[in-house]
Amino acid sequence: MNTDNWIAVDWGTTHLRTWHMNSAGDILSNRCSDQGMNSLLPDQFEAALLSLISPWLADNHSTQVLACGMVGSRQGWLEASYNSTPCAPISQLTQVPVTDVRIEVYICPGVKQLTPADVMRGEETQIAGLLASDDNFNGAVCLPGTHSKWAQINDGKISSFQTFLTGELYALLAQKSVLRHSVDCDEWDDQVFELTILECITRPDRVTAELFSIRAQTLIADLSAGAANARLSGLLIGIELTGAKVFTHKGGVALVGEDKLCQLYAKALKILGATATIHSSEQMTLKGLFLAKQQITGA
Amino acid sequence: MNTDNWIAVDWGTTHLRTWHMNSAGDILSNRCSDQGMNSLLPDQFEAALLSLISPWLADNHSTQVLACGMVGSRQGWLEASYNSTPCAPISQLTQVPVTDVRIEVYICPGVKQLTPADVMRGEETQIAGLLASDDNFNGAVCLPGTHSKWAQINDGKISSFQTFLTGELYALLAQKSVLRHSVDCDEWDDQVFELTILECITRPDRVTAELFSIRAQTLIADLSAGAANARLSGLLIGIELTGAKVFTHKGGVALVGEDKLCQLYAKALKILGATATIHSSEQMTLKGLFLAKQQITGA
Repeated sequence: MNTDNWIAVDWGTTHLRTWHMNSAGDILSNRCSDQGMNSLLPDQFEAALLSLISPWLADNHSTQVLACGMVGSRQGWLEASYNSTPCAPISQLTQVPVTDVRIEVYICPGVKQLTPADVMRGEETQIAGLLASDDNFNGAVCLPGTHSKWAQINDGKISSFQTFLTGELYALLAQKSVLRHSVDCDEWDDQVFELTILECITRPDRVTAELFSIRAQTLIADLSAGAANARLSGLLIGIELTGAKVFTHKGGVALVGEDKLCQLYAKALKILGATATIHSSEQMTLKGLFLAKQQITGA
Repeated sequence: MNTDNWIAVDWGTTHLRTWHMNSAGDILSNRCSDQGMNSLLPDQFEAALLSLISPWLADNHSTQVLACGMVGSRQGWLEASYNSTPCAPISQLTQVPVTDVRIEVYICPGVKQLTPADVMRGEETQIAGLLASDDNFNGAVCLPGTHSKWAQINDGKISSFQTFLTGELYALLAQKSVLRHSVDCDEWDDQVFELTILECITRPDRVTAELFSIRAQTLIADLSAGAANARLSGLLIGIELTGAKVFTHKGGVALVGEDKLCQLYAKALKILGATATIHSSEQMTLKGLFLAKQQITGA
């Protein structure tokens, strides 16, 4: 086994994703499990990791493991303190004490912003990956998801960022609220989505009223389940984009995330007159962890 | 037993509330259960009702039962069709066929608005009660709760209304979202509530960002659980009041609801320069059902 191979780990609240990587940053193999941070006590993290990566380890040397995400939170394996904005996306990795001599584990720190208060863990690694792909990147990055992040990048640093509860609100409303009787998440209506985005810009203050109107339109105006879904999504993405206009005013946005969701954000941004480029979150995570690994080697 | 006594029923999604009333509209007794609409099939409603009100029935004459709420929805006992705005809060009761000869059951219809689409069931009875207390009432009524309603009353009619998802969002966010780790619903900070209301007016578009900031402030700025609760409540009530300003522009608002919640709305309205009077939802429901009863007698 090549002694330069290494292991990339994206360890979030609900999932553990691991990749066996070569020294050029190419994927050799990957495995994942549902042993996310939420399901583990601190002393269970090493075993959960080994249960996935053991086949990739050698007995005659230690393999470097680079991890990012909620694994570095206070409720995770070991707290990797936040860096404060303005800062490079990744610096000062935290090495985790382990019992198995075949591994050397490093966790990427999160990033915090004091005013207004905000935090990220995992997204900073994706931003590092984006900057690794484009040294000259300056401008806005949006990472849509459960907790959507918007970051302003200047000269290789995160100068400010803002988190929106968009994805979590969408899931709660579609699955747990009175709207669950109206919304079918597998159906869609593009035109309704586009009209809703436009509505949000002019009347963001009406958002909680418009949410109820989805239910009312189902009851008395035969709103389809796909139109209801597009309207729910449009209201939440629309108010996010309206609230994030400080980031979009220069026109270009780099989207990093799951492709289908990024396509939706790109469509909404286009309606608002901004252009977007789309980048895979997995690729950006792996590039970011590769960059993190070089920080160890260079240390 | 007095043959003029009657029974008032507020039958919602999760609860069944019944009152034994005399002919002057005074309460003689009351009983309630958790046999709300959600837990019953159509043929189970009569038994659920009788299990509470049997002690108040006479064998030698039938007693009138006046009901309002979700009991009249399509998923309820029998659909009581909506009246359309502009309309009096209550007209055209629906009589329900029953098997027990000791009761005569009438359900109040809901009210719908075609544009923008909206619906209410139960609140129209409280509004009827408010108008019964004050014949000359003209202006705005707000009924805070799971689905907060704002209605404009002109010359005894509901001319328009708007529902906000405020209470349901509060419960979902406080109990099911990432904010559940930050918010203690039994703790409170008045100053934080007041500042948050003011913030919402100027930046309603930031609401989903400010929701996440509650979590971030807990993590990096030691926000107390009471301040987090006041901030969550302030953000949701604040965006509702901002979205409802078409109703408040004349300055006075009649609040109908649970006292503690009404006090909170009154405080927020005062910050926005509006004055509020507070009315008990139970009293308004009973006055509204008393008015509904007179419609039968008069028919």
